[in-house]
Amino acid sequence: MQRSHIQSDFSRLSLNQVTTRRWSLREAVEGCLQAGVPAIALWRDKVAEVGLAEAAHIVRESRLRVTSLHVGGDFPAASEAERRARIDDSRRAIEEAAELGAEVLSLRAGPAPDRDIDTARAMVVKGIEQLIPDAQERGVKLVVEPLHPMFAADRSVVVTLSQANDILDRLDSPQVGLVVDAYHVWWDPDLYDQIEQAAGRIIGFHIDDWKPNTLPHMSRVMMGDGVIELRRIRTAVDEAGYSGPIEVEIFNETYWNMPGDEVLELMKERYVEHVL
Amino acid sequence: MQRSHIQSDFSRLSLNQVTTRRWSLREAVEGCLQAGVPAIALWRDKVAEVGLAEAAHIVRESRLRVTSLHVGGDFPAASEAERRARIDDSRRAIEEAAELGAEVLSLRAGPAPDRDIDTARAMVVKGIEQLIPDAQERGVKLVVEPLHPMFAADRSVVVTLSQANDILDRLDSPQVGLVVDAYHVWWDPDLYDQIEQAAGRIIGFHIDDWKPNTLPHMSRVMMGDGVIELRRIRTAVDEAGYSGPIEVEIFNETYWNMPGDEVLELMKERYVEHVL
Repeated sequence: MQRSHIQSDFSRLSLNQVTTRRWSLREAVEGCLQAGVPAIALWRDKVAEVGLAEAAHIVRESRLRVTSLHVGGDFPAASEAERRARIDDSRRAIEEAAELGAEVLSLRAGPAPDRDIDTARAMVVKGIEQLIPDAQERGVKLVVEPLHPMFAADRSVVVTLSQANDILDRLDSPQVGLVVDAYHVWWDPDLYDQIEQAAGRIIGFHIDDWKPNTLPHMSRVMMGDGVIELRRIRTAVDEAGYSGPIEVEIFNETYWNMPGDEVLELMKERYVEHVL
Repeated sequence: MQRSHIQSDFSRLSLNQVTTRRWSLREAVEGCLQAGVPAIALWRDKVAEVGLAEAAHIVRESRLRVTSLHVGGDFPAASEAERRARIDDSRRAIEEAAELGAEVLSLRAGPAPDRDIDTARAMVVKGIEQLIPDAQERGVKLVVEPLHPMFAADRSVVVTLSQANDILDRLDSPQVGLVVDAYHVWWDPDLYDQIEQAAGRIIGFHIDDWKPNTLPHMSRVMMGDGVIELRRIRTAVDEAGYSGPIEVEIFNETYWNMPGDEVLELMKERYVEHVL
């Protein structure tokens, strides 16, 4: 394994493969091994590209930790049939996660099919509830991730940690936890209280940054290039008892256009500088 | 006065002049008179274009109600001198509001000058506090407006109604209230509870809509063209005891490129259809 020039403790670091989106699953796995990044988070489209069996073989052979699989969910839909189809798809995602040895399956809430956001939110809770037995059987944890409120109408009716905590209260199952993603929650005046509230339920922590005055698809940037108090949030998440993986998950063309190896070096550098 | 073809009760309707941004202050006033819109909200740059005295003369002569003046605030800054300069500017805005007969001065919180959002938030509270005596003396109400969290890093560290309610608790002054702007708060799982909490403090209600899957500067649209439950929010605001003006405030090139008279007709139509 080629040694990176940065010496530090990368034992919790995980590459969410969307950060190096142009890489195939195999390239991402090899990139992590090269860079001494001990874990990876996978996306279902990237798994499908190579096929589930081959993907499982690649990650097992690599001995990388598979911290999560993205993404199931998208629960709200206009018809009962469509809602059932989404649940069925999430069940397949649970199977895939188990096959890949992924510890958690990330669930995206999805948007409302109409203006009735309360009903859509109820569909999310009901949807997750239906998945719990499957998740239990396959030993996969389900994770609720609040997205930034700017995605409330097109990606997720779950938009705050407070709301995620309420959902977990209602579900009351050790099979379901939440993820704190810095980009999605940094603005929240209630952030640190809600992280404390989430003690024992945090099963994922994503890092990235928020760059002001930028178009939304360019606003999610490398740690240190934005305004988020990343070390403060990481400390709060740790103090809430979380000691699991820290995933770098950045959707941004800028990094997709860089050679993957350089992205990994940059991410390690910034992790040490702004997060550890 | 030319009668519009839409017959309904427009007694609470107010045109925020940014909605017809290409119009001068005089054109906006005349447009309201033509359309039977009884009130207008002004912007300081539009007032400055024609001069304060002339602007005051135009609106007084029109007998339109001046529901608000935009905008003071932008409190957080890196140096004490800069913070003082912002306060001084807001004091001038209070003078201008009084001169124009505007009932309230809208305060924008402003972004943090660095990563320390808590300190910036404290500067906002301190800033408003310093303005209260001036506002009292000139009979102008100050209004805290939470902006959508996507503006947290470049326009306003105040991003939720819950936070605005907390700020009002701390200030504890009848001179300060809050505004509910549908576009900024619709996504909030705590929306209706916080509107109830705000009973007696709501001194402004802005209507517009949120269009999904759009670039942010195009996402603020005419009532009915987005996903917001406008009538439901209007009813909640009314039930919290608010009976004041309902301002149409839409920043969007699409409407700026339309003839102003058509924008006013459309806005009246949509007001009846989606808000009243």
